[in-house]
Amino acid sequence: MKNRLYLILIALALAAAGSVAAEEGMWTFDNPPFKHLKDKYNFTPTQEWLDHIRLSSVRFNDGGSGSFVSPNGLVITNHHVAFGQLQKVSTAQKDYVKDGFYARTQADELKAPDLELNVLVSMENVTARVQGAVKPGMTNKQGLDARKAEEAKIQKESLDKTGLRSDVVALYQGGEYWLYRYKKYTDVRIVFAPEQQTAFFGGDPDNFTYPRYDIDFAVLRAYENGRPVQSKDYLKWNSKGADEGDLVFVSGHPGSTERGLTTAQLEVDRDVLYPVRLSRYKREIQALRAYAARGPEQARQSAEEIFGLENTVKALTGEYNGLLDKALFDKKRKEESDLRAKVDANPQLRRDYGDAWDRIALATKKQSDLFKPQQFRSISTASKLASMARQIVVYAAEVKKPDGERLNGYHDSQLDELKFYLLSPAPIYPEYEEALLTFSLQDSLDQLGANDPFIKTVLNGRTPAQVASEVIKGTKLADPAVRKMLVEGGETAVNASTDPLIVLARKVDPFFREIRKQYEDTVESVITPASEKIAKARFAIYGKSVYPDATFTLRLSYGVVRGYPMNGTKAPPKTTFYGLYDRSASFDDKPPFNLMPKFVERKNRIDMSTPLDFVATADIIGGNSGSPVTDRNGEFVGIIFDGNIESLTGNFVYIEDSNRAVAVESPAIIEVLRKVYDADSVANELEGK
Amino acid sequence: MKNRLYLILIALALAAAGSVAAEEGMWTFDNPPFKHLKDKYNFTPTQEWLDHIRLSSVRFNDGGSGSFVSPNGLVITNHHVAFGQLQKVSTAQKDYVKDGFYARTQADELKAPDLELNVLVSMENVTARVQGAVKPGMTNKQGLDARKAEEAKIQKESLDKTGLRSDVVALYQGGEYWLYRYKKYTDVRIVFAPEQQTAFFGGDPDNFTYPRYDIDFAVLRAYENGRPVQSKDYLKWNSKGADEGDLVFVSGHPGSTERGLTTAQLEVDRDVLYPVRLSRYKREIQALRAYAARGPEQARQSAEEIFGLENTVKALTGEYNGLLDKALFDKKRKEESDLRAKVDANPQLRRDYGDAWDRIALATKKQSDLFKPQQFRSISTASKLASMARQIVVYAAEVKKPDGERLNGYHDSQLDELKFYLLSPAPIYPEYEEALLTFSLQDSLDQLGANDPFIKTVLNGRTPAQVASEVIKGTKLADPAVRKMLVEGGETAVNASTDPLIVLARKVDPFFREIRKQYEDTVESVITPASEKIAKARFAIYGKSVYPDATFTLRLSYGVVRGYPMNGTKAPPKTTFYGLYDRSASFDDKPPFNLMPKFVERKNRIDMSTPLDFVATADIIGGNSGSPVTDRNGEFVGIIFDGNIESLTGNFVYIEDSNRAVAVESPAIIEVLRKVYDADSVANELEGK
Repeated sequence: MKNRLYLILIALALAAAGSVAAEEGMWTFDNPPFKHLKDKYNFTPTQEWLDHIRLSSVRFNDGGSGSFVSPNGLVITNHHVAFGQLQKVSTAQKDYVKDGFYARTQADELKAPDLELNVLVSMENVTARVQGAVKPGMTNKQGLDARKAEEAKIQKESLDKTGLRSDVVALYQGGEYWLYRYKKYTDVRIVFAPEQQTAFFGGDPDNFTYPRYDIDFAVLRAYENGRPVQSKDYLKWNSKGADEGDLVFVSGHPGSTERGLTTAQLEVDRDVLYPVRLSRYKREIQALRAYAARGPEQARQSAEEIFGLENTVKALTGEYNGLLDKALFDKKRKEESDLRAKVDANPQLRRDYGDAWDRIALATKKQSDLFKPQQFRSISTASKLASMARQIVVYAAEVKKPDGERLNGYHDSQLDELKFYLLSPAPIYPEYEEALLTFSLQDSLDQLGANDPFIKTVLNGRTPAQVASEVIKGTKLADPAVRKMLVEGGETAVNASTDPLIVLARKVDPFFREIRKQYEDTVESVITPASEKIAKARFAIYGKSVYPDATFTLRLSYGVVRGYPMNGTKAPPKTTFYGLYDRSASFDDKPPFNLMPKFVERKNRIDMSTPLDFVATADIIGGNSGSPVTDRNGEFVGIIFDGNIESLTGNFVYIEDSNRAVAVESPAIIEVLRKVYDADSVANELEGK
Repeated sequence: MKNRLYLILIALALAAAGSVAAEEGMWTFDNPPFKHLKDKYNFTPTQEWLDHIRLSSVRFNDGGSGSFVSPNGLVITNHHVAFGQLQKVSTAQKDYVKDGFYARTQADELKAPDLELNVLVSMENVTARVQGAVKPGMTNKQGLDARKAEEAKIQKESLDKTGLRSDVVALYQGGEYWLYRYKKYTDVRIVFAPEQQTAFFGGDPDNFTYPRYDIDFAVLRAYENGRPVQSKDYLKWNSKGADEGDLVFVSGHPGSTERGLTTAQLEVDRDVLYPVRLSRYKREIQALRAYAARGPEQARQSAEEIFGLENTVKALTGEYNGLLDKALFDKKRKEESDLRAKVDANPQLRRDYGDAWDRIALATKKQSDLFKPQQFRSISTASKLASMARQIVVYAAEVKKPDGERLNGYHDSQLDELKFYLLSPAPIYPEYEEALLTFSLQDSLDQLGANDPFIKTVLNGRTPAQVASEVIKGTKLADPAVRKMLVEGGETAVNASTDPLIVLARKVDPFFREIRKQYEDTVESVITPASEKIAKARFAIYGKSVYPDATFTLRLSYGVVRGYPMNGTKAPPKTTFYGLYDRSASFDDKPPFNLMPKFVERKNRIDMSTPLDFVATADIIGGNSGSPVTDRNGEFVGIIFDGNIESLTGNFVYIEDSNRAVAVESPAIIEVLRKVYDADSVANELEGK
């Protein structure tokens, strides 16, 4: 009898395991999915566990995630997250992107020129304050302004009180507001990076796909007061990695998702935003490739930008295909009509929230009209110098206003970060800047036509190339000291400047402000309160068993290591080094499938069956790059570096069967550090040896 | 100046190579695509080249292709084509399917029990005779009968004259008729086969997909008069294989395609034939799996049938998805409406052929109605014994009629093959036969209902299991000598037989004949002349720059070795042994991704970068399995064993971008013969050493 019952229990357990769905959600640390974890995995994270994971997690402010992995401030992230800094410390003579980098001693570690890391140290719900700032009788615009002023005030108060970076974050499309405080690190040094070809093996074709064979990691070290940070919270390294079926967690900073948008907003995505953006990025890639073709140094200068844009185009293409997919759109429509039916069925909810969807739909018409001018009436969409010039001009005008009335990005609490960027010592390449500005002016001309007032103002009868040549050759802004003088000199200095790029930025500033004003008056001031209503309706109906859209703030995702149905067969839960050599040989070692010489020379030292990359059902999106993957014990088993092609529609909807996060598995990192790069010092520190 | 011109020429050549489209068509050897080959590849096959390829090619009459690859009668095909014969020579004690087989000397070669190989030795156009048999004033049914009688007559005359197997083949849906004469071999012996797991690594999941890591080949030897055939025409072995971009040829026997069907016929496919067939096969697989679960010997007995049905279900599912794809159907509709517009624009063509499409559409209604009774009013859809019983009963009735009036399959020229099958000494497993008959009777009951007259006649109040048990336990037909007596005894013996399976077959014979008659009267007699009209319209408009649908007769396809866009990235032109070991390790060596022990033991002997499988743009379909792939010189560079998942819609339309044939590359075969199996005698004979 006992045996029989035992068998039944096993059968039930197996049946349950078989029916487990993949796991949706990028959860805030104040509201983790306790019930799911308990029901499905009999796992209940303690507060201590949650705090430890949170405090070990790191945000890369230029876009990406990472984690502390040693008590001496070692931070691991993706190579492609560190790419920008690697490029900035490289020169024509020494290309660390191409050749990789290894600091054998701490003294050899290279300072990243303008990298800010953030650790989320506290979270405070400020919904009542922000929403309460909007008083009865206010117009939409007044409400929007009041909300923004209150957010600025909260941030300023917190900064003054704690000295910590303080951001008010809107979650659930404004259903909640939270004050997030960050410990920040701005002295970050590069410890180890493989060659980009090793990190990005397979290049653009393999990007956002799986099976995959990339070793996409880089190791940095955070310093404070000139000394390595003693990081109390860091993830212990698990040298074995993860097995198929294991429960794993991802703690990182997903950039943005649009799952909470209304179908009217998704239609604008589909019909206006995505097509316009995609075609623009493709033209920009063409221009950059033309620049790269001028020579090896030009290719080096433009490499990261080309990588980034190709990455963006591939991601947006996948998302756009999702928007064009009738089944996906039908699913979104059904979700929305279900919610609206529930709202309409309840007189109170109907009165309070029932009109929100139609209000948003109306505002999206205006949003569509404004999108092209927003995109193309700008000088700063490609050139970094032009972007800095524009920000200096805006800064000078904003900073003299009361804090609560300024544009976002220019509040007192945000000025440190702004200045860190504007005064960065990272190299600037005038030839490259001129090419970029030429392209963006030409593109604005092509898109807006010669009679557009912005075009007339900027070109004034000359060609884009003439204008770009004149202002880039004439400007002194490439020198951080010149930028510093202007920033410190404020409006007087900026208005008096005869620097041609500043002059140009002053000329176009009214266009920017006019479009911004129209957007606030007719779009943002309508959508913000309407979105808040929809969020409140969702809370009223579904409770807080939901997670907010991604906002480049810290989130916890979870899932299991598991393959998926792919193109008629099964994608495996992991890949091995055998696969790396197969894919290279399958293409006769042609780029982007070529192996670096070290991998050819040291082939026989590598244990080919070592796990390389793996997939898990955890719900992630761009920005999660570099996120640690941990096991139940909070130990580091891998590092997220991508999603599969099927995950790209994750911007709008999570599809259980096939959405997968792609990670480098911890043993692969140790294997190459020790056997390919002779970087035992790094491997030892990671493994705590 | 010379250098400059040279560079321009190279640039033009590269541009041309880049724009080459993938290659469509399964061409008959009387009408190869000379123009395409000349224009695209500057290659003109000589008549000698064509004859050599044709005479080296072999048809496996139980479904599949192969080729002579040594002057001493060595024939290579796929393991999965030889599977049935391997199973038939295996026993509970010695399972050559599971363990593989290697005859170290000719004396050790194992005779295949019932395998007939055919070589196409001549082709003669008999269109005028067959079409001319239909006289003005004949009804549709009279026309159909006249046609069939003429075909039988041509076959009989040819057989009597030449002694060669002689088949009249309808090409272009009856637009042409050809008399194909075959040299046949019925003494075929097994020389070498790897383990099925090696040939079918990845199992059902990987079937019809790529990248792939299968070593799907088997080596046989044809004998005549007890001695190895001295095969003058055989393909010389190319030990290097093929490179990316190489022009290659496939000579084999594609089973059937439906590219020439009207959209009305495709709608019947989509709405009736495919759904009914697919669900039936899935139920049959369930039944077979239940049988296999009874024990290892039952699993062995049913292995090939399960493999075959799973293979069929995966193929049909891919084809069915194509039919459900609006884009594919729209393409077919457009092709049809273009052709009909051209016909309607010409008064003569319109008068002669304009009504054909509507006639077919009308007949398809009747076809749909008849389909279920055709499928399920039968005892012989699963059990081999029941199938033989039915054929013996039909044979006895048909053979006494004049040759021209018999059912197809029972003409004088076809009796040798029929008897070869009916009198096969291959083992029959009564328990297995009973399970199969129980399933098929139960399935007919479920599909037709208890009140169907067929069901009432067959079951007569008992259960399917009772009937199956009674007739299978009672029958003596498992003994070939008993079948021989009945066949030789003709109608007298059959009518007098009290063998319960023969009694049952006699009882159901009227149902079969009634449905057959209805089908001929209302479907076949309408569709045959209408299809001929459409074929003639096509010839009138497009000339003979077209190829006929596949008919399990010899065809020449061509293409280049080339990867393709796949699931967001690129599929490589080939795979390597690294990939085999990766895929196994990626799934922790779990079935169906487990390596055979020899591959684990001898891992270090294998050159991992040896090409394993490759893909080419050549247009193939089921039946091409085992086809040789040759280079321009007619040398053997690989063996077709599959198509990719994207090729499954090839039943209806060839899609240039992604349709690929999948082949084992010649060096992989030598690598495993020498390094894994110590089968140097086979490798030496293949390589001519």
